[in-house]
Amino acid sequence: MESASGPWQDAVVRHSLAGRAETPVQALLLARLRDEGPLSKAQLADRLEVSRTTVGAEVARLTELGLAVEAGPAASRGGRRSTLVDLSPDIRFAGLSIGATGLSVGITDGRLSTLAVRHAPCDIRQGPEQVLALALETTRKLMAEVGVDGLSGAGVGVPGPVDFHRGVSVSPPIMPGWDGYPVRDVVSRDLGCPVVLDNDVNVLAVGEQHAGVAKNARDFLFVKIGTGIGCGIVVDGELYRGVDGCAGDIGHIRVEDFGPTCACGNTGCLEAFAGGAALARDATAAARSGRSDILAGMLTDGADLTAADVGAAVSQGDPVAVQLIRESGRRVGQVLASLVSFFNPGLIVIGGGVTAVGHSLLAEVRGVTYRRSLPLATGNLPIVLSELGADAGVIGAARMVSGAVYSSEPARG
Amino acid sequence: MESASGPWQDAVVRHSLAGRAETPVQALLLARLRDEGPLSKAQLADRLEVSRTTVGAEVARLTELGLAVEAGPAASRGGRRSTLVDLSPDIRFAGLSIGATGLSVGITDGRLSTLAVRHAPCDIRQGPEQVLALALETTRKLMAEVGVDGLSGAGVGVPGPVDFHRGVSVSPPIMPGWDGYPVRDVVSRDLGCPVVLDNDVNVLAVGEQHAGVAKNARDFLFVKIGTGIGCGIVVDGELYRGVDGCAGDIGHIRVEDFGPTCACGNTGCLEAFAGGAALARDATAAARSGRSDILAGMLTDGADLTAADVGAAVSQGDPVAVQLIRESGRRVGQVLASLVSFFNPGLIVIGGGVTAVGHSLLAEVRGVTYRRSLPLATGNLPIVLSELGADAGVIGAARMVSGAVYSSEPARG
Repeated sequence: MESASGPWQDAVVRHSLAGRAETPVQALLLARLRDEGPLSKAQLADRLEVSRTTVGAEVARLTELGLAVEAGPAASRGGRRSTLVDLSPDIRFAGLSIGATGLSVGITDGRLSTLAVRHAPCDIRQGPEQVLALALETTRKLMAEVGVDGLSGAGVGVPGPVDFHRGVSVSPPIMPGWDGYPVRDVVSRDLGCPVVLDNDVNVLAVGEQHAGVAKNARDFLFVKIGTGIGCGIVVDGELYRGVDGCAGDIGHIRVEDFGPTCACGNTGCLEAFAGGAALARDATAAARSGRSDILAGMLTDGADLTAADVGAAVSQGDPVAVQLIRESGRRVGQVLASLVSFFNPGLIVIGGGVTAVGHSLLAEVRGVTYRRSLPLATGNLPIVLSELGADAGVIGAARMVSGAVYSSEPARG
Repeated sequence: MESASGPWQDAVVRHSLAGRAETPVQALLLARLRDEGPLSKAQLADRLEVSRTTVGAEVARLTELGLAVEAGPAASRGGRRSTLVDLSPDIRFAGLSIGATGLSVGITDGRLSTLAVRHAPCDIRQGPEQVLALALETTRKLMAEVGVDGLSGAGVGVPGPVDFHRGVSVSPPIMPGWDGYPVRDVVSRDLGCPVVLDNDVNVLAVGEQHAGVAKNARDFLFVKIGTGIGCGIVVDGELYRGVDGCAGDIGHIRVEDFGPTCACGNTGCLEAFAGGAALARDATAAARSGRSDILAGMLTDGADLTAADVGAAVSQGDPVAVQLIRESGRRVGQVLASLVSFFNPGLIVIGGGVTAVGHSLLAEVRGVTYRRSLPLATGNLPIVLSELGADAGVIGAARMVSGAVYSSEPARG
């Protein structure tokens, strides 16, 4: 239960918001209400293995803090009626999920149900000032729309490595200008609330775990195939970040000794063969060389094609586009097969923009992964598409900051 | 702290030994004494955050159970003298580490210091009856030698996948006759003590973590290059087994689409290129074809060469043998580079029989791994040889069963 654990201490900017758990029991109560919905005091006492007196006192304090409310009598369990407790209806979180070519922003309630979500195109290469300005403007508009004037917290995901504890981007290959940029503190100052920053793949994994297809999975991988390729790793229900916070950086696994140059400067990276940018590059080449009339027809004003164009060409039955998708799936499957042998996960979720092309990609990934892994590890291994799509980023980002706000750890900043 | 966790409940055969922790606090006390040595009651109370009264009562009970002793007054900390507590000097564990071509057996005290260790050659392909008979006979001889008539527990490692909870080997590629064999129960009946069974790589990883080079590592990989190749994964100080218990099976990661046939029946597996059996195969071919006079000189009676012969040829400066070792290291490094990008470990320990050839292998593994991984993940990543060698298996196996004996979970059988 991350709501009572240490790392948040470093990872969140301190704010003097009234609404914040003060004790580990309060934190556990809030996390239960978030994950299970309204519960009676008797149920809360059972779940937390503490006395009803303790629950009563802690709920009273949470009510004073504006985090919980008493919501009438609970259904009878035979004995004395217990009181139903719920999260305060005033709690609002924002989730800002920033990708390489688009961003999603959402406002959620305390249980992380989205009240409103908006998507906007963006170009991460324009640098942090411009991209964050767009994200923050979108957030404020959305807040006005749903009548929210203050947030309890905001989660932010960015498409590159992050120093989770310092809240900054670090040497992101596809994000010029972002290296060392204090994303967390800038967003926190602007929105006036605690902020947690993580990379987009971790945020997506957590979103799918909270409300999507990975809801009951303890050990799973979330593989994002977008402009780049990355992987969120969940071990025993918790995100695994690695000792330097860069676990899951599978886009730069070398799949060939030679090959196209990657955004990171090396050659042979998975991402340079199979990511959205690679698809766009290969599709553009196929269009210009006359190998595909359908792709050539999509070339306008001499601009390069996008991964979305490849998807459109697939849906029109273009064999070159289908072949590009298959080749991408084959490369991803090749790497996943190794990871399955190593990690023996219980589930693999595939998400990210490229999955818009859907089942032809999934079929190829599945085929290669199952064929090349040991039967013992794949006997019962579902490989499925993300259920929430872009909303996973919004929910995951909100989930991350809810873990900090519902925590009793002293925050910092 | 595995001494108080759930899985042991399934993984250990029940025995009516007197000596077994009865409460979580007793279990934590025993684990502290194992890992830190004698401690005063005051120190134990501090470490466990319980009252001195509780420590006094639990230590008294552990003394009755024959698990702990009071060892005189502790050094003064200023106030009232506290009493020093130690593990009972009567506690004895056995560690049985069975490899494909040899086994190691050791007897340890309660802190897992080895009192005696013996190595014997064996051939895992002779099947469980014969191999276990040898291991058990060696154990009994060793017990007689050091004057032990009863064990508090025994840990067993075998060179293949294990159903940890049922205590049986499962579909082990290089172990005909072992599939489904109830190793744990057979050893437990013979030695009359609780037994924990795991695969040899996990056992080696735990041994290195308890007493070797990985002593302070929380997230690390132990890579064994023996007849086969496997990997023990430690996440946040605990072994990670995967959802089916087969995590770390990296020997069967496919590194080429085609290649020599592996013991598992597939082609292109890492193990079939780089394991000890592959080295022996390639060295024999080189000897027979006249490519290496030194290797040819080692051929006797038409028998095949072994990986140890390759090591001997390397120390004589044979260029073919050196090339074989380099090639093996290159293949292992190629796979490790992917795993480093994925898992971002803090340490990689290389062990197993092939490491007897030492630094030429390590240099190659290091070179390829560092070159092919992202700088962020390798900036501070030591890749080192096992410190304990074969003793790691003995200590790791004893460590595993100590976790069960020092646990308060009801055991089963």
